[in-house]
Amino acid sequence: MGRVYNFSAGPAMLPLEVLQEAQKDLLDYKGSGMSVMEMSHRGKIFDGIIKEAEADFRELVGVPDNYSVLFLQGGGWTQFAEVPMNLTKNGTAAYVITGNWARNAAKEAARYTKVVKVASSEDQNFSYIPDCSDLDIPEDADYLYICENNTIYGTEYFQLPNTKGHTLVADVSSCFLSRPIDVEKYGLFYGGVQKNVGPAGVTIVCVRNDLIRDDLPEFVPTMFRYKTQADKKSLFNTPPAWGIYVCGLVFKWLKKQGGLAAMDEKNRAKAKIFYDALDASDLFKGTVRRQDRSLMNGTFVTGDPDLDAEFVKEAAEQGLVSLKGHRSVGGMRASMYNAMPIEGVQKLADFMKEFEAHHKG
Amino acid sequence: MGRVYNFSAGPAMLPLEVLQEAQKDLLDYKGSGMSVMEMSHRGKIFDGIIKEAEADFRELVGVPDNYSVLFLQGGGWTQFAEVPMNLTKNGTAAYVITGNWARNAAKEAARYTKVVKVASSEDQNFSYIPDCSDLDIPEDADYLYICENNTIYGTEYFQLPNTKGHTLVADVSSCFLSRPIDVEKYGLFYGGVQKNVGPAGVTIVCVRNDLIRDDLPEFVPTMFRYKTQADKKSLFNTPPAWGIYVCGLVFKWLKKQGGLAAMDEKNRAKAKIFYDALDASDLFKGTVRRQDRSLMNGTFVTGDPDLDAEFVKEAAEQGLVSLKGHRSVGGMRASMYNAMPIEGVQKLADFMKEFEAHHKG
Repeated sequence: MGRVYNFSAGPAMLPLEVLQEAQKDLLDYKGSGMSVMEMSHRGKIFDGIIKEAEADFRELVGVPDNYSVLFLQGGGWTQFAEVPMNLTKNGTAAYVITGNWARNAAKEAARYTKVVKVASSEDQNFSYIPDCSDLDIPEDADYLYICENNTIYGTEYFQLPNTKGHTLVADVSSCFLSRPIDVEKYGLFYGGVQKNVGPAGVTIVCVRNDLIRDDLPEFVPTMFRYKTQADKKSLFNTPPAWGIYVCGLVFKWLKKQGGLAAMDEKNRAKAKIFYDALDASDLFKGTVRRQDRSLMNGTFVTGDPDLDAEFVKEAAEQGLVSLKGHRSVGGMRASMYNAMPIEGVQKLADFMKEFEAHHKG
Repeated sequence: MGRVYNFSAGPAMLPLEVLQEAQKDLLDYKGSGMSVMEMSHRGKIFDGIIKEAEADFRELVGVPDNYSVLFLQGGGWTQFAEVPMNLTKNGTAAYVITGNWARNAAKEAARYTKVVKVASSEDQNFSYIPDCSDLDIPEDADYLYICENNTIYGTEYFQLPNTKGHTLVADVSSCFLSRPIDVEKYGLFYGGVQKNVGPAGVTIVCVRNDLIRDDLPEFVPTMFRYKTQADKKSLFNTPPAWGIYVCGLVFKWLKKQGGLAAMDEKNRAKAKIFYDALDASDLFKGTVRRQDRSLMNGTFVTGDPDLDAEFVKEAAEQGLVSLKGHRSVGGMRASMYNAMPIEGVQKLADFMKEFEAHHKG
């Protein structure tokens, strides 16, 4: 049936143009006679690729000069440890628990620091973002940690917490580059790229330079020290070169789309189509408090697990794939990252209507 | 000039057939309608890819059932920490220092265990493999660590150390899958794949199951525990999916070539062409003791840095690229991993002769 609309929560769709360019240059990158997968990371060509990727990322996001951009490996779970390992000074950290990933991050942090949970939406299966305007953050907290978009539950922060002067750390994996952000509000944000940005295997960390320290405990591995990679511009050891290259192509594509403000507009338009269809339906119900609905991951159920399964199956036959929800929520989840075309979401909305008509009676 | 012969020490050449297949399927993997870079790592298709990759690896190498094969991230530097973090019990480990990487591994291990250097070739700039037939290994050493092929210096073990009953741990990054090995002689071996096996960003660890433990110190990150990944068959979190896929294609290619015994034969034939050319030359000198010469990385010099640079430059014009030696040795280095065709090495040998004739004066 040709290319499908892939609603996977991640790894997820990449822009077709990006894939086509990667395909074209796969055997011979720009006349170098070799694939990007084959070239020395110490050579001029790859040096150009990674430098350009960093420059484009900085331009897209608006990263000030006093922040470092690091291309790392290991995904969110690695950052769950690296963040407390690198940022712990006083020995207390504040976490807002809005889902599985924030909870796992807090659990991992507890190996290295005292963790204070300052807010949580666990009481209602993480179906909302707690009020973070007046959190009781310990005075000596080294940082306040949030997961900005909750892939599993389909919630998203539309206002950052009032940190009361503390350093904000955010996992932005599933809303990465989906809208403009004000970098200076964060001490550090990071994202696995495999949802919105590129192929799995690259994690981008953006960290304010004063948080990059030398005086860490002996047990912190060399690879887990931000300073190791910041000093070497992400080339301390062999980087995940192909992944960084594809991320770079995505950055160029995003610039061509008009940058993050334009992406925000497109993502809002896609989300509107989806949530309008949801709200117009008698069969499908959203699982999330309205004002906290994620623009990236739309979670919904019929209330009947068999019917949910039937929907997922029939949708797949229409080329609308990977719509099964996470087991923690059940039902369906439509992930609509940057590379999902508006036509894909429209087709999903149309199919929801059609399915409802067909199964009403 | 089309595809070049790339003698890079890594990342390095991949088999042309493998690249062609990856290119063909890049937009639509086997009729799935998506790229391997886009598919959920929890889906059936990727599950098939990683399972087949592991099965092919096991078959190629002859991995017994009581060993786990893990597809990880982070390269050698990550293993430098993971090995002592996971294997330390008594608190002493023995290291043989045959180059930069063994030295760095020992330095990193010293964060977690007492390190005893039981042999070294540092006295002669690592130009040989020390005698390891009767090492003075501390009784209580948790393991004996070697770097089996030394990429920078061009030396290789052709006989494993007498471990006197201790667990052998080997970094095999630059001789990975280049010849048959007897897995049961090792407690653990690992390799970054970016030299002999696949694109940078994947590290394969093969470890005997009794060495995978639960009772590790609290400070060991979840991601650095072999048990985390062994329990989840390398799918604890999102793996470097594209890299694993390409490694899988390389495993198939290796099987088609006749497996590791056939590769050993081809690699010996290539090395013979190169070292015969070296030994026949008055201009070029090898930098390594004859019996320790690596089949993978051939290091050589003219003795005149300007002439070395001229050789590297003229060779590149002939499509023989990345021949510059590492700064620790100087001169030239020809890396001849599995994917380097015999024609490439023959062309290099011919060019060495031609260059010598031309520059003899």
